[in-house]
Amino acid sequence: MRLLLINPNTSPGVTETVARAARAVLPGGVEVVPVTGRFGARYIASRAAAAIAGHAALDALATHVDDCDAVLLACFGDPGLLALKELSPVPVVGMAEASCHLACTIGQRFAIVTGGERWPAMLEEFVAAHGLGSRLAGIRALAPTGDVLTRDLEAGIAQLAAACRLAVEQDGADVVILGGAALAGLADRVGEAARVPVLCSLATGIQMTLAAARLQPRKAVAGSLARPPSIESVGLSEALGARLR
Amino acid sequence: MRLLLINPNTSPGVTETVARAARAVLPGGVEVVPVTGRFGARYIASRAAAAIAGHAALDALATHVDDCDAVLLACFGDPGLLALKELSPVPVVGMAEASCHLACTIGQRFAIVTGGERWPAMLEEFVAAHGLGSRLAGIRALAPTGDVLTRDLEAGIAQLAAACRLAVEQDGADVVILGGAALAGLADRVGEAARVPVLCSLATGIQMTLAAARLQPRKAVAGSLARPPSIESVGLSEALGARLR
Amino acid sequence: MRLLLINPNTSPGVTETVARAARAVLPGGVEVVPVTGRFGARYIASRAAAAIAGHAALDALATHVDDCDAVLLACFGDPGLLALKELSPVPVVGMAEASCHLACTIGQRFAIVTGGERWPAMLEEFVAAHGLGSRLAGIRALAPTGDVLTRDLEAGIAQLAAACRLAVEQDGADVVILGGAALAGLADRVGEAARVPVLCSLATGIQMTLAAARLQPRKAVAGSLARPPSIESVGLSEALGARLR
Amino acid sequence: MRLLLINPNTSPGVTETVARAARAVLPGGVEVVPVTGRFGARYIASRAAAAIAGHAALDALATHVDDCDAVLLACFGDPGLLALKELSPVPVVGMAEASCHLACTIGQRFAIVTGGERWPAMLEEFVAAHGLGSRLAGIRALAPTGDVLTRDLEAGIAQLAAACRLAVEQDGADVVILGGAALAGLADRVGEAARVPVLCSLATGIQMTLAAARLQPRKAVAGSLARPPSIESVGLSEALGARLR
Amino acid sequence: MRLLLINPNTSPGVTETVARAARAVLPGGVEVVPVTGRFGARYIASRAAAAIAGHAALDALATHVDDCDAVLLACFGDPGLLALKELSPVPVVGMAEASCHLACTIGQRFAIVTGGERWPAMLEEFVAAHGLGSRLAGIRALAPTGDVLTRDLEAGIAQLAAACRLAVEQDGADVVILGGAALAGLADRVGEAARVPVLCSLATGIQMTLAAARLQPRKAVAGSLARPPSIESVGLSEALGARLR
Amino acid sequence: MRLLLINPNTSPGVTETVARAARAVLPGGVEVVPVTGRFGARYIASRAAAAIAGHAALDALATHVDDCDAVLLACFGDPGLLALKELSPVPVVGMAEASCHLACTIGQRFAIVTGGERWPAMLEEFVAAHGLGSRLAGIRALAPTGDVLTRDLEAGIAQLAAACRLAVEQDGADVVILGGAALAGLADRVGEAARVPVLCSLATGIQMTLAAARLQPRKAVAGSLARPPSIESVGLSEALGARLR
Repeated sequence: MRLLLINPNTSPGVTETVARAARAVLPGGVEVVPVTGRFGARYIASRAAAAIAGHAALDALATHVDDCDAVLLACFGDPGLLALKELSPVPVVGMAEASCHLACTIGQRFAIVTGGERWPAMLEEFVAAHGLGSRLAGIRALAPTGDVLTRDLEAGIAQLAAACRLAVEQDGADVVILGGAALAGLADRVGEAARVPVLCSLATGIQMTLAAARLQPRKAVAGSLARPPSIESVGLSEALGARLR
Repeated sequence: MRLLLINPNTSPGVTETVARAARAVLPGGVEVVPVTGRFGARYIASRAAAAIAGHAALDALATHVDDCDAVLLACFGDPGLLALKELSPVPVVGMAEASCHLACTIGQRFAIVTGGERWPAMLEEFVAAHGLGSRLAGIRALAPTGDVLTRDLEAGIAQLAAACRLAVEQDGADVVILGGAALAGLADRVGEAARVPVLCSLATGIQMTLAAARLQPRKAVAGSLARPPSIESVGLSEALGARLR
Repeated sequence: MRLLLINPNTSPGVTETVARAARAVLPGGVEVVPVTGRFGARYIASRAAAAIAGHAALDALATHVDDCDAVLLACFGDPGLLALKELSPVPVVGMAEASCHLACTIGQRFAIVTGGERWPAMLEEFVAAHGLGSRLAGIRALAPTGDVLTRDLEAGIAQLAAACRLAVEQDGADVVILGGAALAGLADRVGEAARVPVLCSLATGIQMTLAAARLQPRKAVAGSLARPPSIESVGLSEALGARLR
Repeated sequence: MRLLLINPNTSPGVTETVARAARAVLPGGVEVVPVTGRFGARYIASRAAAAIAGHAALDALATHVDDCDAVLLACFGDPGLLALKELSPVPVVGMAEASCHLACTIGQRFAIVTGGERWPAMLEEFVAAHGLGSRLAGIRALAPTGDVLTRDLEAGIAQLAAACRLAVEQDGADVVILGGAALAGLADRVGEAARVPVLCSLATGIQMTLAAARLQPRKAVAGSLARPPSIESVGLSEALGARLR
Repeated sequence: MRLLLINPNTSPGVTETVARAARAVLPGGVEVVPVTGRFGARYIASRAAAAIAGHAALDALATHVDDCDAVLLACFGDPGLLALKELSPVPVVGMAEASCHLACTIGQRFAIVTGGERWPAMLEEFVAAHGLGSRLAGIRALAPTGDVLTRDLEAGIAQLAAACRLAVEQDGADVVILGGAALAGLADRVGEAARVPVLCSLATGIQMTLAAARLQPRKAVAGSLARPPSIESVGLSEALGARLR
Repeated sequence: MRLLLINPNTSPGVTETVARAARAVLPGGVEVVPVTGRFGARYIASRAAAAIAGHAALDALATHVDDCDAVLLACFGDPGLLALKELSPVPVVGMAEASCHLACTIGQRFAIVTGGERWPAMLEEFVAAHGLGSRLAGIRALAPTGDVLTRDLEAGIAQLAAACRLAVEQDGADVVILGGAALAGLADRVGEAARVPVLCSLATGIQMTLAAARLQPRKAVAGSLARPPSIESVGLSEALGARLR
């Protein structure tokens, strides 16, 4: 099985972090195909950067999906998720979507801990749009974005762990999602003090993508995620233009 | 890995169907431990039968969980689910819960097709209680319960397939869950005509249970699913009484 | 009129408290038939104990309902409520259900004050499942369960009164429900300081059960609370098995 | 006990119908004080008529509440309900409010059957505003208003019965409310064919008002239904002006 | 264009404030027709006063709408709004309704700052009834009502500005509505410190009323806001009685 | 005043239609600056095309906003709306957002009629995400997209008018939005038969944009729509890269 791993940030270093963490949890026989966004913000931490990343993720999918069996959109916030599901011939799972749904099987109310002060509003809207608002205990975001938090790893882990504790004690979370591509692999270290399970959004995303892929769902030819009618376009990459046609 | 498969119906034949279907999709190295409810209705198709089954499922968990790594509650409707999660030292996933959450990653709106005329009201309440009401396209239940539907297999499949088509065409489903332990393994045959993915609730339950188990979430010691304070009891099986104490 | 009073706890002492408090508010001509659960936890304060109690309450109803005109399920949290309504030939009202609905006619937003640290999550889910989430101001539970709180009555009352005041001042409640069988009869003493009405969950349950009984609603033969199709069972009490058949 | 029965319609004939039906179900020792609105539409079947009736109901309460122990607002739709609760020293219950809440203890989903083509939108908003939208199966209104329906009683009953049947078969109601002051007393005759319980909104209103009154809730001095700060007014009846002051 | 400005308070001084503020923002060619309620509380700050004001606003509309092209209901809380829309031949917009909807185009979550301790509960219900509950960040009301706040203007502005800041910092508002007829014209002075846009409810109401009027929507002859069937009435002003007939 | 009109379709013909219709309703002194998307689908009628259009609309805003006083995003569905609001120094209003909010002041429940079979699911999600789900009566989309519908104008108008009638008669709409840039200017002709007001989404968008602009709201420097922290990017247009920095 080949798993396309789309990092719609334009920082190859984040892609490497994600790919390394993915390989650490993937079972034998699953190959990862990591791809970095061709254009857009270096790190996605605003509505504008996320809107651009939706296009960049589509562009990456169009270019690389053909030999793959499933796709993980590896930016917590899942820019362009439904557009990717619509165009893709194979299952596409978003890291945030996967984490929120799987967390609901672990606890009654989940919290999200992440980095970047603009994310809470965006993620609250994301959770509500996915119909999971009643399961959300709260979102706690540190001011520095995920990539910055990992520069001084010990300090970052201490800050994240403190946020997890508050999510349990003050927000009433039964389970915490440590959200963010740049934070992949840190859940174990952060979770020790939390007293409830702490999920790594990347590991959770990978497990959910494998679960979906193994069910081998047919590509819909009806409904709102079927391939859309052919349309001409201008100014897009050749691969994306071809996939819209 | 050992996977405890609890069938809270008291029909060993259904347990065998479920175990066989489970073994067909489980990867190497995962052993299934199938258990049948000790008391209750032969088939669960009413609120009363489901209430009793919640106790029977707890009883089965208390007796058999100790050597297992995860638990799948294999009755679509998940009787006693939160009580099992509370008492269990390892992850517990319900077949309906798993199907609904995974379906949300495959389509925007899911439908449920099952057997038993009392199930739609109960399942609509189940979906709402899990916070997924906005993702539900509809529930279509044939009058015969699942075990009856499979007695004349070809006729049953034709009826289920027709219901799936209506779920897509009239209810606007992007994905359909074929719900019910007794219907395990039929999704492929039912799904051909549906034009959207059709998920087998047992196969989906297994994939989600494996996904949760592989994340190895700690048992919560805080929150609403932590082990509850010790309490004395009367009239219960020794195993269940011991686990409450 | 004969009113079946089901205490699904297995503590006869709580049943006596409830029966005494019930007789204090019942009008002439109404006889109370108090019953204690045959099996389960001594006191219900967890999801597991509540799941077992649903079965125990059904068992009690099956055994004792035949000469009665209405049923009050006298455990705040109403374990097995819908199953009882389904099987019972006469109206069944839950103490929590009754309190929440009647409270809505007294104030715009109600709060619940009770004992037992596991109850807030369970009751929040209960209120939401009954469709009353938008009317809930908050739930405040003292750590000791209701039966423990009454061992030192004056101290217990002081703690409960303080919680009522916070429910009004911080949560914005217009009315407070003092929830719990073991707290029956204490609302007046607790309520003096609250500045809004404080309802005794048992007294409210009784008034609502009488209201429902006096309307003499027909037993439904359609819809989701009609008597379900006959089903064989194993391992149940003779009375319950007979009622399922 | 004295029960103030406010008919905010300005048709004394409807008041007489309501009073007669009330006396038929009231227990001994409860006296009814029927009052007709002083101004407004002859029959309330529009938003404008209902808005005026809110003022008329307040005016009636201000004039007549002083010797009474509880108030039933006997127009299905409950014009001015919260304003009455705010001003009144004793419990006030609305006929629609009472019916909806009590119906929730009889069935999982209730329907409303009434007369007057403008009522469905108004009642749907009423039910939603009371937080019970998820419990509503549907609203079916015949074109003639309630007072017109009773002019040819047998024909009216046949039409209402047919609407009740549709509410069960097509909308999935577990219980039906026959709503409207002018339809008081007809539930039994209408309900025979419905296969689920049919509640008379007046009888239900009376039982709920008695239930609330017997709990003798204190008048709130905090929260959103406490008596408001004194305010001068112009152009009102002496009694209402005095009560605002 | 003639714009009917209904102040359902019975204080002509507030009407003058509102009219002056309206003229300051109206474009050339739009004439304002200010009207004061004929009866009711001097200032609306309770449920009872608002219920009476619904009638008074209808009365004013019936008397004065005939030469006007649109109506602004200039009391934040919009008493009688839907009844006015039903009866009026021209568009009617409420000041609170307009502010909430326009605020949603300026920010994701809006807060309301106003005067009068009874308003928060009433406005929270108003926002929910208009379907905008998920967009509401919070409501902060100073204890003095709007007319009292403006008696010591500098102190009032300081208090309002502090409330706006808290709405942003603690409630997470992206935009704040300064609600209340008596506070018309103060948004600019209050808003300097808020760090997000602060909307004057009167200016916003006027812009929305102009927007609606310029679209020249037909009067509905179907649906829930069409003119209702003719009905006789008693005790109303000649103009209102005629409009109901 | 200069109004930037962004058509994120890449069809200059649609831009011309929109600009012409805009000029027909704009008051004197308002100049329109029409812009066509630089890249993307010729017509937006799928999730993928909308995701790309979010980037294209941002690109257009970054290039052209500097001399403008307000922005109208003139594609019904509002791709990239919140990202534009975040980056823009002046108010940005989406055509769908504007239509839905203003429609709420005209009727209690609104319907949307448009072209393109993929739009209903996308628009239902849009309406829900904007918190207006409870106000939505229904969405009816003809199979041909808007640009195709106008090729045979009389036939297209007849089809749209029929859909409007169904929205009123079957879905219970009080007001209908004729949604779509390519349908600008047709509301009057479509609306004659509808019996409720029919709003042109472009005209409504323009009136709402003018209303917002005339309030001259400050650009937020706090909250979720403030300008985000500076970030480096790659592969974007110079104007967009500069605005992110």
